[in-house]
Amino acid sequence: MRKKIYEVSQQLSKVARGEEKAELVITNGILVNVFTGELLENIDVSIVEGRVAYVGTSDHTIGENTQVINAKGKYLVPGFIDGHMHVESTMLSVTEFAKAGLAKGTTSIFMDPHEIANVFGVEGVRLMHEEGQQLPLKVFTTFPSCVPATTDFEDGGATLSVEDIKAGMQWENVAGLGEVMNFPGVVYGDPLMTGEIAETIKANKTVTGHFPADDSKMLQAYIASGADSCHETVTKEHGLEKLRLGMHLMIREGSAWQDVKEVIKVVTEEHVQTNNISLVTDDVYPQTLVDKGHLNHVVRRAIEEGVDPVTAIQMGTINVARYYKMDRDLGSIAPGKVADILLIEDIRKLEPSTVIADGEVIYQDHQLMKEFPTFVYPEHIRNSINLKQALTATDFQLESKSNNEETKVNVINVIENSARTEKMTTALKVKDGFIEPDLEHDILQLACIERHHQTGQISLGFAHGFKLKQGAVASTVAHDSHNLLVMGTNAEDMAFAANELAKIGGGMIVVDDGRILAQVSMPIAGLMSDQPLETVVKEVQQLEAAWKTLGCPIHAPFMTFSLIALPVIPDVRISNRGLVDVKEFKMIDVEITD
Amino acid sequence: MRKKIYEVSQQLSKVARGEEKAELVITNGILVNVFTGELLENIDVSIVEGRVAYVGTSDHTIGENTQVINAKGKYLVPGFIDGHMHVESTMLSVTEFAKAGLAKGTTSIFMDPHEIANVFGVEGVRLMHEEGQQLPLKVFTTFPSCVPATTDFEDGGATLSVEDIKAGMQWENVAGLGEVMNFPGVVYGDPLMTGEIAETIKANKTVTGHFPADDSKMLQAYIASGADSCHETVTKEHGLEKLRLGMHLMIREGSAWQDVKEVIKVVTEEHVQTNNISLVTDDVYPQTLVDKGHLNHVVRRAIEEGVDPVTAIQMGTINVARYYKMDRDLGSIAPGKVADILLIEDIRKLEPSTVIADGEVIYQDHQLMKEFPTFVYPEHIRNSINLKQALTATDFQLESKSNNEETKVNVINVIENSARTEKMTTALKVKDGFIEPDLEHDILQLACIERHHQTGQISLGFAHGFKLKQGAVASTVAHDSHNLLVMGTNAEDMAFAANELAKIGGGMIVVDDGRILAQVSMPIAGLMSDQPLETVVKEVQQLEAAWKTLGCPIHAPFMTFSLIALPVIPDVRISNRGLVDVKEFKMIDVEITD
Repeated sequence: MRKKIYEVSQQLSKVARGEEKAELVITNGILVNVFTGELLENIDVSIVEGRVAYVGTSDHTIGENTQVINAKGKYLVPGFIDGHMHVESTMLSVTEFAKAGLAKGTTSIFMDPHEIANVFGVEGVRLMHEEGQQLPLKVFTTFPSCVPATTDFEDGGATLSVEDIKAGMQWENVAGLGEVMNFPGVVYGDPLMTGEIAETIKANKTVTGHFPADDSKMLQAYIASGADSCHETVTKEHGLEKLRLGMHLMIREGSAWQDVKEVIKVVTEEHVQTNNISLVTDDVYPQTLVDKGHLNHVVRRAIEEGVDPVTAIQMGTINVARYYKMDRDLGSIAPGKVADILLIEDIRKLEPSTVIADGEVIYQDHQLMKEFPTFVYPEHIRNSINLKQALTATDFQLESKSNNEETKVNVINVIENSARTEKMTTALKVKDGFIEPDLEHDILQLACIERHHQTGQISLGFAHGFKLKQGAVASTVAHDSHNLLVMGTNAEDMAFAANELAKIGGGMIVVDDGRILAQVSMPIAGLMSDQPLETVVKEVQQLEAAWKTLGCPIHAPFMTFSLIALPVIPDVRISNRGLVDVKEFKMIDVEITD
Repeated sequence: MRKKIYEVSQQLSKVARGEEKAELVITNGILVNVFTGELLENIDVSIVEGRVAYVGTSDHTIGENTQVINAKGKYLVPGFIDGHMHVESTMLSVTEFAKAGLAKGTTSIFMDPHEIANVFGVEGVRLMHEEGQQLPLKVFTTFPSCVPATTDFEDGGATLSVEDIKAGMQWENVAGLGEVMNFPGVVYGDPLMTGEIAETIKANKTVTGHFPADDSKMLQAYIASGADSCHETVTKEHGLEKLRLGMHLMIREGSAWQDVKEVIKVVTEEHVQTNNISLVTDDVYPQTLVDKGHLNHVVRRAIEEGVDPVTAIQMGTINVARYYKMDRDLGSIAPGKVADILLIEDIRKLEPSTVIADGEVIYQDHQLMKEFPTFVYPEHIRNSINLKQALTATDFQLESKSNNEETKVNVINVIENSARTEKMTTALKVKDGFIEPDLEHDILQLACIERHHQTGQISLGFAHGFKLKQGAVASTVAHDSHNLLVMGTNAEDMAFAANELAKIGGGMIVVDDGRILAQVSMPIAGLMSDQPLETVVKEVQQLEAAWKTLGCPIHAPFMTFSLIALPVIPDVRISNRGLVDVKEFKMIDVEITD
C-alpha cells in the first residue's frame, strides 16, 4: 500500500529543509498552479517517498544520488484524474488499461466496475479493485449501485445488496457509490437505493449520480437524496441548472457520448465558476485510447472549445480530487501531495512526454520505464460462460404458434450511433413450424442465452438494421446482464458462434459458414481481454472488418449490438427472458398472435 | 441531534415533487448562488425537516400550514460560517455567544476551545462542545492541539495527549485538530505534534494550521505534515505564497488582529482564484460583537477592500464548508442542504434582518424568536480558582537577595496594541528587605499565582507601561495557562483583588484601597461569563473605566495584561514559575545580582 502523509512527513520535512536530499528533482518547469490558477515559471519540484517535499528553487535538495530531470520549456501538470469511468469499456484488464492511461497522463481513476459486478457481484468488484491496488495507476472504486439494473426483465450473474455496499465502503480506496442510475428508485424511496446512499454517506464517502431526465422537480428530489454529481448532461441548460443546484457537473467525452462541445458552454457562454465542474470519459473504447488519448483528450477538447488551459486542467485534476475529498493527497503539485506530475510541451495539446506517478518515472520521453505486476484472475472468472450444454442449430429456431405460412412479429430496430432502439413489426415466413429470418428485408435471428448459472434459458427474437447477409455474430458483452447474445443469418452459424465464443471464455466473435472470421477473446468475466491495448485494437479492427465482410455497413456495430440486451433504455430489447418493451415496462411476445 | 440527509431525504423528495407541503417557504428573494457565483432573482426556497427541499418557483410546495416569508428585494445569503474562532475570547458562554453570533448571521462556527483546555483539559473541551450541540448555532470543534503551549516554563490546569486527540476525533461534530501552533514541533518531529496530526488524518478530519514565521523551507516542511490552513498571515506576499503551496488561507479580522486590509490584496491586486480563501474572526471581544458584528463584519471588510460581494460571501460560507469537507450539508442554499439562510437588504452591509438556522426562524426582523436551552456547568468548573489559602499582602512582596538599598531588576515592558513585550532593566529601592515598586517611573508589582492545583506557587515580578497610580488589578484570563495574574501599586490591594476575584470564580477585577471598582465575573473556568452579551459589554466598559480611574491610559489594557503571562511570544513574560525570557527560551531572575 502507498504510504500515508503522516508516515513520511518527517522525510518530507528533512528534504524541504535540505537536511536530507530528494530522490527526484524536476528542474526549471512551468508550474500549472491549480490553486491560484497561475502559470509560474522556473519552478523546481523535489520529491521523496512518493510525495512532493519542496516547490521552488530546489538546489538545497539535490544530492549526488538525486535523479534530476530538466523540464526547461515544459509545463508541469498534475496527473490527470478521471472521476468516472468503466474500465470494462476499454476491453482491457485494469493492468493493461493502466499502461495505456498512464501513457496519456492519467495517474488516477475512479472506476465503476459495474459490468463485472453484473457477472460476479462483490467478487468481481473486489478482483478488479485488488488488481488496481498493485498498479502505478491509482485506482479508486465507486461501488456499483444498480446491480442488476432491473430485476423485472432479466437475470444477470449476481446482485448487490445494501449490506454489500456497507461492507464495500470499508475497503481501502473505495471512494463512494457508483452512478446511481435508478433515479426513480431514489426519488420514490426504493429501499435498495436509499439504503445504499445512506451507507455511503455514513461512511463519509461520495455518492455519484446519474440523472438523464428533464424534470426539475424530480432532479431536485434526486439531489436532495445526497447523490451530488451527474455525468449524463447533454445540454448547456441542464448543465447550468445542475450547477446552480449544487451538483458537481461531470462533463463527459467518451468514445460514443461526446458532450464537451455542448455542455462546456456553461463556461464559455455562461461564464459560471468552474470548481464544481470536472471532465470524465465514462466509456472509452480501445481505438479511442490510441487515436485520441484518455482524459488528456477530454481536457484538450475543453480547451479547443475555448476554455482557458489552466481552468480546463483544473477540471481534470484538483476539481475531481476535491469532489472525492482527496485533495489532501491528489490533484495538485504542492508540498505533501502525492507526486503525480506530467511534463508537457504544449499546454493545449496535453501529450505528456514524461509521466511521474507516486514520485516514480513511469514514462520518460514516451518510453515505459517500469514493469507492471501481473494479476491472475481465478479460473472460474476466466471460464465464465456457463452453458447448460453445447448449443445446436435447433436452439435458434423459433417455433410459430400459428399454423399459417406467414406470421407477424415484433422486431428490434437498431439505430446507428444511438443507444436507443425502435420497435417495428413485420411479417415473416413460417417453414416447418419455425419462423424464418428474412435477409432480403434485413430481419436477422437474435438470441439471448443465460450464461451465468447454466439454466439453459434461451430467448429468441429478431433484429433489423445490421444488414448481415451471411454468417453470424456473438458477444458476451451484452449490457447489463452480459448474457450470451447471438445474431445471425442461419441457425448453424449462430450455434457455431456461440459455442466457439464459450470455448474461449467469452468476448466477441464473427463466423461464417462454420469458420471463425474474427474474434476478440475476453476471458476476464467474458468482458475484458488479458492482452495489451495494441493487440486488442488490432483484434477489434479485424472484428469490425469481419462484420463488414458479412454485410454490415454501420459504425462499430458490435457496440450497438452489445446494447441490444439493455432493458432500461427504450424502446425494445431482448433479454434472457424474452422481448422487453421498455416504454411500457413489460415483457412482450415476439410473435403477434391476436 | 440534527437529522442526517438520508434520514429526511424522502420528505425532501415529497416536498420537491409537491406531494407534501413545505414547513417554511421564503419567496421572491435574490439568491446568492455560491456555486456559480451568480445573483439569481425571483427565487423561492422551500424548507422541510430543517433542510432545503426545493429552489425556484415553489407554489407547488405551499400548503395551508406552510409559513411563508416574503423576501422581496432581499438577498438570500447562506448562513455565515466562522472557520476559526475561540469562543472564550468573547468572554461569553457558548450559549450567549450563539445568540449574539446568530443575530449577525453566523449560523456555524468551528471553535477551538484552547483556553478552557488549558484549565480543564478534555473535560473542558467536552463541556463547551456539549453546550454547543444543543444550540441553534451549529458548533463544530477543532480539538486544541497545543495544550500546554509550552511544558518548559509554566503549569496550566491540564494537558492533552495524542490519546486524547485520538479519542476526541471520534466525537460527533469534532471537525479536526485546532491550530497547530507548535510549528517547530511539527517540522522537527515532536511526537506529540506528529502523533496528533496522524490521528486526525486517520479519522479523515481536518488539520488546521498556524504558521506565523517567515521561512519558506520551514513553511513547506510544515505544510507537508498535513496542516493545511493558516490564519496567521499578515502580508500579501505570505498569503500568496501559502495559496500557491496549497494552503487554505484564512484571512483574519478579529478585535485585535485586523489582517483583511493587507492580506485581501491577494485577491484585489493579485487576482488569484479564491476558493482556497476564507474569512475568520479568531478572537473577538464583546464590544466588537456589538459595534461591528461577527463574521458578517469580516465579509463586509473584504467587500470594502474591493472584493466582489458574492466572492466575499463565498469566503464566509461555501469555502469554509468545503475546507472542512462539510459542503454536503453546509455553506449554500440548494436542495438537500441544511436550511441556514439570511435575509439581507444590503449585500455590502450584510446586516441580516431575518436569520434562519436549520430551517427555523431564529431572528425575524431583528427580533429573537426562539428560547435557547440553558447549559449548567458542573460546580467545580464554576469554582476553578483553587488557591492554597487566601492571599495576604506579604505574598506580594519580593525579597531582595542583596543587602543594598537599591537593586537592579528585569521588568516586562508592555507595548500598547501589541502582543509583544520588551525586556527592560531598572533600579528599584529595597525597603525592609523587599524590592519596592516605583510608581513615579511606572514600575508596578506583578504576580502570577498558580490557581489550578492549590500548589501555593507564586512568582513575582515587575511591569512597565500600564501607568497605574493607585489600587490593583487581577485576571484569571491569563494566556495560555490562565493562572491568577495580579498587578498593583501596593501589596494590600493586590491581595484584596486576588482574593475577591477567587471568591467569584474568576474573571477580571479592578480594586482600589480595599474597594472593588469594577469586575467582570467569569465563573465558567475563570474564563467566561454566564451573562448575556449586553451585560458583559457593560461590565467590561466599567472595567476599562476603572483601569482609567487608576491612571492607565492605554486601550483595552486588560487584554494586554492577559497576554503578559504567555511564554511563547517574545520578549519576556511572567509565569507561575517565574520570569521567562522568550528570546533565549530560559527562566531568568527578576533581580539582577551579578
